[in-house]
Amino acid sequence: MNQPISILGAGLIGSLLGVYLKKRGLDVHIYDKRSDWRSQQVLSEGRSINMAISYRGWKALQKAGLKEKVEAHTIPMYGRRIHDEHGVTYFQPYGKNDEAIYSVSRNILNQVLLDEAEKEGVQLHFEHKVDHVDVSKNSIDFSLKDGQTKTCKSEVVFGADGAFSSLRTAMQKQMRLNFRQEYISHGYKELTIPATEDGAFAMDPNALHIWPRGNFMLIALPNQDKSFTCTLFMPFEDEKISFDKIRDEQDVVTFFQTYFNDAYQLMPSLTADFCQNQTSALVNIECYPWTVNHCTLIGDAAHAIVPFYGQGMNSGFEDCFILDGLIEKYGTFSWDLVFEKFQKMRKPDTDAICKLAMDNFKEMRDKVSDPRFLIRKKIEAKLHELFPYDWVPLYSMVTFTDIKYSDAYAIGKVQEAVLDKVMSDPFIAQKWENLDYHAILDNVETSRAV
Amino acid sequence: MNQPISILGAGLIGSLLGVYLKKRGLDVHIYDKRSDWRSQQVLSEGRSINMAISYRGWKALQKAGLKEKVEAHTIPMYGRRIHDEHGVTYFQPYGKNDEAIYSVSRNILNQVLLDEAEKEGVQLHFEHKVDHVDVSKNSIDFSLKDGQTKTCKSEVVFGADGAFSSLRTAMQKQMRLNFRQEYISHGYKELTIPATEDGAFAMDPNALHIWPRGNFMLIALPNQDKSFTCTLFMPFEDEKISFDKIRDEQDVVTFFQTYFNDAYQLMPSLTADFCQNQTSALVNIECYPWTVNHCTLIGDAAHAIVPFYGQGMNSGFEDCFILDGLIEKYGTFSWDLVFEKFQKMRKPDTDAICKLAMDNFKEMRDKVSDPRFLIRKKIEAKLHELFPYDWVPLYSMVTFTDIKYSDAYAIGKVQEAVLDKVMSDPFIAQKWENLDYHAILDNVETSRAV
Repeated sequence: MNQPISILGAGLIGSLLGVYLKKRGLDVHIYDKRSDWRSQQVLSEGRSINMAISYRGWKALQKAGLKEKVEAHTIPMYGRRIHDEHGVTYFQPYGKNDEAIYSVSRNILNQVLLDEAEKEGVQLHFEHKVDHVDVSKNSIDFSLKDGQTKTCKSEVVFGADGAFSSLRTAMQKQMRLNFRQEYISHGYKELTIPATEDGAFAMDPNALHIWPRGNFMLIALPNQDKSFTCTLFMPFEDEKISFDKIRDEQDVVTFFQTYFNDAYQLMPSLTADFCQNQTSALVNIECYPWTVNHCTLIGDAAHAIVPFYGQGMNSGFEDCFILDGLIEKYGTFSWDLVFEKFQKMRKPDTDAICKLAMDNFKEMRDKVSDPRFLIRKKIEAKLHELFPYDWVPLYSMVTFTDIKYSDAYAIGKVQEAVLDKVMSDPFIAQKWENLDYHAILDNVETSRAV
Repeated sequence: MNQPISILGAGLIGSLLGVYLKKRGLDVHIYDKRSDWRSQQVLSEGRSINMAISYRGWKALQKAGLKEKVEAHTIPMYGRRIHDEHGVTYFQPYGKNDEAIYSVSRNILNQVLLDEAEKEGVQLHFEHKVDHVDVSKNSIDFSLKDGQTKTCKSEVVFGADGAFSSLRTAMQKQMRLNFRQEYISHGYKELTIPATEDGAFAMDPNALHIWPRGNFMLIALPNQDKSFTCTLFMPFEDEKISFDKIRDEQDVVTFFQTYFNDAYQLMPSLTADFCQNQTSALVNIECYPWTVNHCTLIGDAAHAIVPFYGQGMNSGFEDCFILDGLIEKYGTFSWDLVFEKFQKMRKPDTDAICKLAMDNFKEMRDKVSDPRFLIRKKIEAKLHELFPYDWVPLYSMVTFTDIKYSDAYAIGKVQEAVLDKVMSDPFIAQKWENLDYHAILDNVETSRAV
């Protein structure tokens, strides 16, 4: 009989992967260094990071039979609601009427997936800290909570253990692994807008709220308990406005009153949250190869990205979907082939989403409040309305389709060049509704032919 | 009194840095995980990697008062001697008549530097393996050979511990360190051409010998014992000719007879050397920042480069020279300032030499045997002869001057564009001696002005 399949990491990707592999009839074990947080009220009630599930994520959940179970815990967001410095807001739809991304608490989602994995028969092993992985033997050394150690030989080892993956660290010492880790200048801090006193949402729940302020921004996503989880993105240091300049509670209050006054009015625990919650870093990680022998990286362990396209989890779920498709095709007796195909097929796409996520950061914090950018978005929306199959805006390709990220990136570049040209007209604000939209589309087709 | 200065790594850079710092009156300790190899005959007589000292290296050695001591152990190489597939050789001078790079054994050079550091009063601690560096406290935990552990608090910690630096690994866990590690497809294996039976050099000793063969190449550097150290650079795998295709002794013989027959005739221990000596990888490492608190990376630990410009050690020695200049200027009570200036000033230059080293790989393995490349080199040599201050070939700027690497890179790009234009003339082979060389130089000046 074959040795078991080991998955390192019981997070979102590890749990979903576990469900997929178990459904293929494999003996699947998930290991995590943390204790089983599902029993700990504090975690699910405390700091709740929110995720936004979009098309790729849903597709992967559906194939695993989990779509309905997850759906019950989500809130649809149909667009961005932009808040300016005077508290005036306006709405930018993400796509067409019914297109939305879905806010969900990371903890609740993880719990649903883990429960499901366990129900399917995946063995969960908490409090297993990886000491070493011998990649030539697919053998993992763990240390347990009681000081004991344990060695597990596996048929296959998956590193679904996140941006600071233990499997990747082990691979780095045992093979020629190309690796790049880049921190951005910005960090983030989580804050909260609670439900109102009469138990309602304090703002429109069906939108992702953004307070764009140039080099920094605040965002808020709705939770099912009627609260919003807010995230402040700002440079760590070396800027006029940065985390290191906010030194005490009075600085926090002044800063929020100045830049986010409408949000400030809804944040009773702001100063305490600000001082207690840590400021976290944002890192972009690329590496290659992802696989050696029967070990492979997946999700953030292979390609951690910044969160500005909302595709970190979605791309990891899509990894699982694609990998499962390869297992379907080649079986579970050709892991070498499956992994080789997986990394060759998938790497250009995760590289593309890495770049897109960085680009979208600039768009979110800066451009969304620019009137010319709004006109540009309207022109794009009109193009999409007129030619629903021939002009799909980049954001929609990434978020509402499963077009390969690398194709979306390439098509997006062509469309961007065409729109740059349209926008170069100084009177565009006056005449955008009466443009020759067919001629614009022709430009795209000419560019593609070249 | 201040705490001691700790240098991790007793290699070339660590030893030279130790001499510099000791001369500044500091209490300097060098730690290395290896045992003291100076007493071990086997190492200095065995596999001997060769280095080529060029202008920047000599300048740094001279300031430390070590130039004469080192000079005695070197052999000047005035140019490349190219070997074609029929054993025909020709000579390409590196620079003007007296310009040379100097071959020296890494072990002998290291020994000279370490002896000198010890003589100056630097304390050497061998068999000290770094377990952890707490960068916020400049505190290092070592484990010793007998299983004991030891903690050293330091005023300053230098990581001169090479491409796989322990200090850098510690920094990576404790700060937002941007980091990139890229392996090239080629590996290398060291071989040897011994002295002839009557105790002479088997080839011209005053040249760096190259057998360029497109995607792979052999080089040889002279040793004072009349032998040559040879290095074969070749892809690891996935190519028609690569290390993985050479499977047994017969393959080795066939391969050498086919591509390097003149060298093969001089290599009696070839098959044994080939099978015993490991195939090593080549990695390019960039990171930033280099410094946090009172800890700083230097040499390969900060910027490991591929060996194809012969600047790995030279750039590390230049790091020491520049750092010492900053200490001279700002004193030993402003380490923060010294380190901040050091990394800001030096990073663009080490980035430039990284790129140049990769580019030179292509030149060495490929272009040096191209007749058009030879004409190009002759045109450059003539330009340099006519305008010794206004046209200095890139190789000469890097090797025979201390022009900042980043400036050399930028000037090199301008000169390259001018020469590309000159070379685009299909009849250049016939008329290169009668070109209007003043007009060519004018092109450079126009480009720079733009």
